[in-house]
Amino acid sequence: MKLAVMGVGAVGRAVVELAEDYGHEVVGLADSTGAALGEPLDVAAVLAEKDETGVVGRTSHEELLDADYDVLVEATPTTLGDAEPGFSNAVAALDRDRHVVLANKGPVAERYADLRAAVRESAGELRFEATVGGAIPAVRTIEDLGPERVDRVQGVLNGTANFVLSRMAAEGLGYEHVLAEAQELGVAEADPSFDVDGTDAALKGVIVANVLRDARGEDDISLADAEVAGIEDLPTSALSLAADDGRTVRLIVEATPDGVRVGPRLVPENGTLAVTGTQNIVQVATGHAGRLNISGRGAGGPETASAVLADVGRLPPR
Amino acid sequence: MKLAVMGVGAVGRAVVELAEDYGHEVVGLADSTGAALGEPLDVAAVLAEKDETGVVGRTSHEELLDADYDVLVEATPTTLGDAEPGFSNAVAALDRDRHVVLANKGPVAERYADLRAAVRESAGELRFEATVGGAIPAVRTIEDLGPERVDRVQGVLNGTANFVLSRMAAEGLGYEHVLAEAQELGVAEADPSFDVDGTDAALKGVIVANVLRDARGEDDISLADAEVAGIEDLPTSALSLAADDGRTVRLIVEATPDGVRVGPRLVPENGTLAVTGTQNIVQVATGHAGRLNISGRGAGGPETASAVLADVGRLPPR
Repeated sequence: MKLAVMGVGAVGRAVVELAEDYGHEVVGLADSTGAALGEPLDVAAVLAEKDETGVVGRTSHEELLDADYDVLVEATPTTLGDAEPGFSNAVAALDRDRHVVLANKGPVAERYADLRAAVRESAGELRFEATVGGAIPAVRTIEDLGPERVDRVQGVLNGTANFVLSRMAAEGLGYEHVLAEAQELGVAEADPSFDVDGTDAALKGVIVANVLRDARGEDDISLADAEVAGIEDLPTSALSLAADDGRTVRLIVEATPDGVRVGPRLVPENGTLAVTGTQNIVQVATGHAGRLNISGRGAGGPETASAVLADVGRLPPR
Repeated sequence: MKLAVMGVGAVGRAVVELAEDYGHEVVGLADSTGAALGEPLDVAAVLAEKDETGVVGRTSHEELLDADYDVLVEATPTTLGDAEPGFSNAVAALDRDRHVVLANKGPVAERYADLRAAVRESAGELRFEATVGGAIPAVRTIEDLGPERVDRVQGVLNGTANFVLSRMAAEGLGYEHVLAEAQELGVAEADPSFDVDGTDAALKGVIVANVLRDARGEDDISLADAEVAGIEDLPTSALSLAADDGRTVRLIVEATPDGVRVGPRLVPENGTLAVTGTQNIVQVATGHAGRLNISGRGAGGPETASAVLADVGRLPPR
């Protein structure tokens, strides 16, 4: 497949670096500064140019969207509300009958119905495995089981929050101390708000809920419909009290066809949900297949890129 | 899709009972006594007849194989060596350009190359998710990651052996005592040899290894090539010694492109591989995506049938 990639963060960069290994060709790459085109694109040269000058290319985004590619990989930063520019990029590619693979959570979490409407009018298909749980095949597993037969999905879907909770419990340290440590290690961003206040986990829950609701003919929901609490105010004493009872605290997302709830919850200390460090876990509950648990790396450039490229591999030839 | 199902054990029975829920139609059902055909087949009536008289139908297997179905579901008991009659049933359907979904491990573990040769000559496709880990999507996850990029798969793939080891460790009871208890509970069969001597787990490992080898252009292997040890001679003292060190024992399968090893291994007591009771777990290790862990119900009629029906859902229309 010929890939056009929008976004040159950790994920977009890993996608263009790994694409050839997966048998694909990168023909376009863009960030907010502009786009570079080529058949194939000299990815190493473009990335070196970007590192040196900060500029990917001088070609316009419109020219990239009109170019000869099979799949648009949308990996610009997730934004809330109108989910721009990710939403318009995805729709522009669908309007041109191209496939779209999203790493950007915004369009599927905030404007799912609008996006599905664009898919219905397009010969292209839409996939978004990378938006939920990095390398973990959450969306695909739900699709395979049949979303109409999945009753509930829950799990740990934010590695930064999980790292903080794991460290607080293991070392008896306070939230601010552990967060600063996580920032030093590069596990937490300079502004970790969306990770620790539950927003990032909630967006993933909303995406899953939208898949479950779509299969049942229900309207889509968005972040505003989710019930969200974070871990910022969790005292270390809550973790030691939990430990006295053989439990610990995890930031748990619960998505059902009825909606999404995110918040710190007590879970058994050595139980399935108590993954440690930056690991993520997804539990998918169904009637016939019981409960499936999938854990792995929920973030990271190559990990998330592997989900993007698995999505690309599932698309029909254009 | 129109399904013809061979085998009326727990899995074949669950497949015909659930098929309609998944949007499919059963047009044939057979066991060793003969076959019943219908468009659609009155599944409830045929199963009631089988329960009462022991006979599914008087139609011949040849007539079933020639009937108008899209997918043959092969769910007769797994046999070693020539893997018959499963192998010939699968090949007969492929020769007629039908799809084949296997729940029977024999053909993919013992005669993988012969089966692939029949697939190459057929317009039908072959799938076998249900042969490894029941409800756990092991084969599909490997396919999605790209089998050529999967370095190693390990896990717990026999629920009976895992139940016995879990109980021995938790209660300090001896092997014979726990096995008898498992038989009473229906967790172990009257003849549990293949479960406790590692054969069943090894067959699953061989299937995975064949997928990894096929992607690398290597010849297939069979059970005879696997290094297999069971749990029959494991003393309870080994489990208590392990516990003193924060570990426990699990019957671990390890499959790589180089081959398969099965045997009791020390694993961390609360670690990912130490699933309890009849749970199974599969760890898939790749370079880019890190290690994915998938746990769930590794056996059972409806659980395994859900894997069969997910396979059916992935097949192209005939």
